[in-house]
Amino acid sequence: MSEERLEKKKTIELRKKHVGPSCKIFFSHDPIKIVRAKGQYMYDEKGQRYLDCINNVAHVGHCHPDVVKAGAEQMEQLNTNSRFLHDNLVLYAQRLQATLPDKLSVCYFVNSGSEANDLALRLAWQYTGHKDVITLDNAYHGHVSSLIDISPYKFHQLSGVEKNQSVHVAPSPDVYRGKYRVDHPDPATAYADEVQEMIHKVQEKGGKIAAFIAESLQSCGGQVIPPAGYYQQVAEHVRKAGGVFIADEVQVGFGRVGTHFWAFQLQGEDFVPDIVTMGKPIGNGHPMSCVVTTKEVAEAFMQTGMEYFNTFGGNPVSCAIGLAVLDVIVKEDLQGNALRVGRYLTNLLEKQKEKHPLVGDIRGRGLFVGVELVKDRLKLTPATAEAQEVIYKLKEQHILLSADGPHRNVLKFKPPLCFSTEDADLAVGHIDNILTELEVALGLTLHNTLNVENENSKRKLPTEENGHQYPSELAHSNGSSQGVPQQTKQTKQAKRLKT
Amino acid sequence: MSEERLEKKKTIELRKKHVGPSCKIFFSHDPIKIVRAKGQYMYDEKGQRYLDCINNVAHVGHCHPDVVKAGAEQMEQLNTNSRFLHDNLVLYAQRLQATLPDKLSVCYFVNSGSEANDLALRLAWQYTGHKDVITLDNAYHGHVSSLIDISPYKFHQLSGVEKNQSVHVAPSPDVYRGKYRVDHPDPATAYADEVQEMIHKVQEKGGKIAAFIAESLQSCGGQVIPPAGYYQQVAEHVRKAGGVFIADEVQVGFGRVGTHFWAFQLQGEDFVPDIVTMGKPIGNGHPMSCVVTTKEVAEAFMQTGMEYFNTFGGNPVSCAIGLAVLDVIVKEDLQGNALRVGRYLTNLLEKQKEKHPLVGDIRGRGLFVGVELVKDRLKLTPATAEAQEVIYKLKEQHILLSADGPHRNVLKFKPPLCFSTEDADLAVGHIDNILTELEVALGLTLHNTLNVENENSKRKLPTEENGHQYPSELAHSNGSSQGVPQQTKQTKQAKRLKT
Repeated sequence: MSEERLEKKKTIELRKKHVGPSCKIFFSHDPIKIVRAKGQYMYDEKGQRYLDCINNVAHVGHCHPDVVKAGAEQMEQLNTNSRFLHDNLVLYAQRLQATLPDKLSVCYFVNSGSEANDLALRLAWQYTGHKDVITLDNAYHGHVSSLIDISPYKFHQLSGVEKNQSVHVAPSPDVYRGKYRVDHPDPATAYADEVQEMIHKVQEKGGKIAAFIAESLQSCGGQVIPPAGYYQQVAEHVRKAGGVFIADEVQVGFGRVGTHFWAFQLQGEDFVPDIVTMGKPIGNGHPMSCVVTTKEVAEAFMQTGMEYFNTFGGNPVSCAIGLAVLDVIVKEDLQGNALRVGRYLTNLLEKQKEKHPLVGDIRGRGLFVGVELVKDRLKLTPATAEAQEVIYKLKEQHILLSADGPHRNVLKFKPPLCFSTEDADLAVGHIDNILTELEVALGLTLHNTLNVENENSKRKLPTEENGHQYPSELAHSNGSSQGVPQQTKQTKQAKRLKT
Repeated sequence: MSEERLEKKKTIELRKKHVGPSCKIFFSHDPIKIVRAKGQYMYDEKGQRYLDCINNVAHVGHCHPDVVKAGAEQMEQLNTNSRFLHDNLVLYAQRLQATLPDKLSVCYFVNSGSEANDLALRLAWQYTGHKDVITLDNAYHGHVSSLIDISPYKFHQLSGVEKNQSVHVAPSPDVYRGKYRVDHPDPATAYADEVQEMIHKVQEKGGKIAAFIAESLQSCGGQVIPPAGYYQQVAEHVRKAGGVFIADEVQVGFGRVGTHFWAFQLQGEDFVPDIVTMGKPIGNGHPMSCVVTTKEVAEAFMQTGMEYFNTFGGNPVSCAIGLAVLDVIVKEDLQGNALRVGRYLTNLLEKQKEKHPLVGDIRGRGLFVGVELVKDRLKLTPATAEAQEVIYKLKEQHILLSADGPHRNVLKFKPPLCFSTEDADLAVGHIDNILTELEVALGLTLHNTLNVENENSKRKLPTEENGHQYPSELAHSNGSSQGVPQQTKQTKQAKRLKT
């Protein structure tokens, strides 16, 4: 095909030679070469179509013609820095602002979610005059050095590296697997109290809180939906300590959650962060992003006297693309589609949970959905290898899904917002089949787990109450054509699969 | 005009309301609204043409049709992340590598010069296991927090902020105004010895050198051309201490210096950095950049086990654009043009130096040229207000130039590489007129400075040897229609003019 310029073997060979080996590829033992894409579909060099359930960057659909046209036309006319006046910049800032609470009125345009979160930290440090930052366990906020420091998802991988002493990790507000669960009378308050306690400890040691930062819904951390009211209480504690609240919308913003344009708005009208950072979906793949904050924070940042200049940030092409993305979201009611298809998908998956013991939890908002696989609904033993097996088998069926979370056992749906109910049917149908095969291999049946599950959703049972032992994975490895040893091998290769 | 969607007044009003006040604009009292650009020319909303002497980002010329076409076509086809195989990524990596010494063979694609320099630090820290970084005085390496720490150009502006204890600032190898000058028998060794001494001091205090980082030619720091052989000696000292040499080519790479594709190559064939970072010109305005390093450094970075993923970095659109930029540089012999027109421009400016006492120094390579203005060629008193006056007067003539350096007295030429000898004539002609007017106002004449200059180029004269007193600026402020008070006012407004 004309889109392919090299044989796949040659592409792989050159990549090994000239691209940093830390830059991982999906399905490294048999990677996919994608040459074109449209909507929610990607196509390989042989013309094979893949259903894309993971690319939240291609927010309004791959290669959306309106976005391409806006970018191409502006590229022809002008692409320069923001030291000259340009209407695209101010019109885009105005449009973005209109999606946010009034208080969040000042924009800084940058090139990536990482640049946005780093700037958010700089704003917080400068505004508060404080240094300490509270982040959530399993959080991922970006790849520049200051953000590795506040991303336990990343720095937990490093052994023997000194943790930044002014970074403090609060428990992830995960009501399925976390410290306080659905059976807790008030997990929002319980998790917020943890933050308050952490603040007190920091202060006792002479620290001063600059910011609390959290993804409005944790993505890499395992598609975690914090209990409603949690952020309000955290914000109160943090502000009392002189800090600010940074909501990281890089993964989940721009209508993905369906009911709201921003995921932080799920917490209620009474919650307004001090700083919001954006990224991935903002330009449908074009490298751009934004930080929005209050006038007070922006003015304090200016008081340093230090200019903020970002060479590419806010250039007319990026802003034209950003405007086109906002237009398409409205024109095609993609937020509404996220809500409708998201509900449809979640319902389908709930039925899978009723049917498959491996499905421990379904959680999501709009087209941001997590399916947590467990080998034991009581002990919540992560079904890590099984999650990888699902991903690999789906790939064979030409469906792209990924698994993430601290145990890599959470299947992540975050497709382009044009995802349809038919797409949901297709994906879940295949998942159903794969899970059935896996459960046969593992000897997991529904009746020996569901009762426990019903109890467990109300309170934590001690292991003894259940009594029975699940057959071990290995004991059944020979009884299935899938073969668990194969899974293990694949798992190792797929270990770093994520988006 | 159709390209203008808002009245200029409205654009300014919205910008004040919705764009961070730290994001400065050129000529803030009367900013320019640019609506289109082509080659080395930019056009305002009234169709007025400006000659662009400063946009080194629009490297192959604003809106180059080949680059626009490559970007537009690829945007239509596919724009996704580097976890899928794509030929553009590997072909581009191969092409970039071919411009560099063999040893520099592994690429990491990112979105900005800042992301590139931050990653360079991460690579250096990981490879060496050390933490301390040596940077040059007046250096600027980017806007993310780790780079503010190593950018004296930035952090010198902050009062009362704690300097990062593992960052050490060596003297800028400026042979005009620096510690060792043209009259020194061996300034390269003298400046390199300063670095060696700094390394010893760091080690005595228990520090360990991870990296020395420098722009191959300092840009914001005042268009400084280090003496040949300096980097070789520095690299030897730094490597002996277990550190690496990072060459920051963000401002000066991709053929700008004329004789070579990379500015670090000016130091000689025997100099190869361990890490090279790229930025601004790489995508002719498209947000992209790259870090290239050795196999050894890349493998050490992988040993952490931590994946490096950059959402937008190395996407097929960025790589298509990057490839098109490389093609145009070759096809239009822009490196050759930089050499020819750069020499022509430098010769013109040298004649200005012979004619105008305000011109203290002309330095440059290819189309990267600095004109340092001084009020006194003996004392090197920076002609800061005068430099701003030149910039403002040039703007009135529709010529865009900027002034930078620690004293904001160095006029910076770094135009698109399609800059012509006619453009050089036009710009220098206007500079000539403006300098003449300024010198009349200041009472500066050639005969009372040139003799000193001739002496001074060989050795430093004590003030007494010259004897005469230059008339003060203020004494002459009433004798000219320009009026110095006006200059002072403008200077204040223009204080942050830079690119």
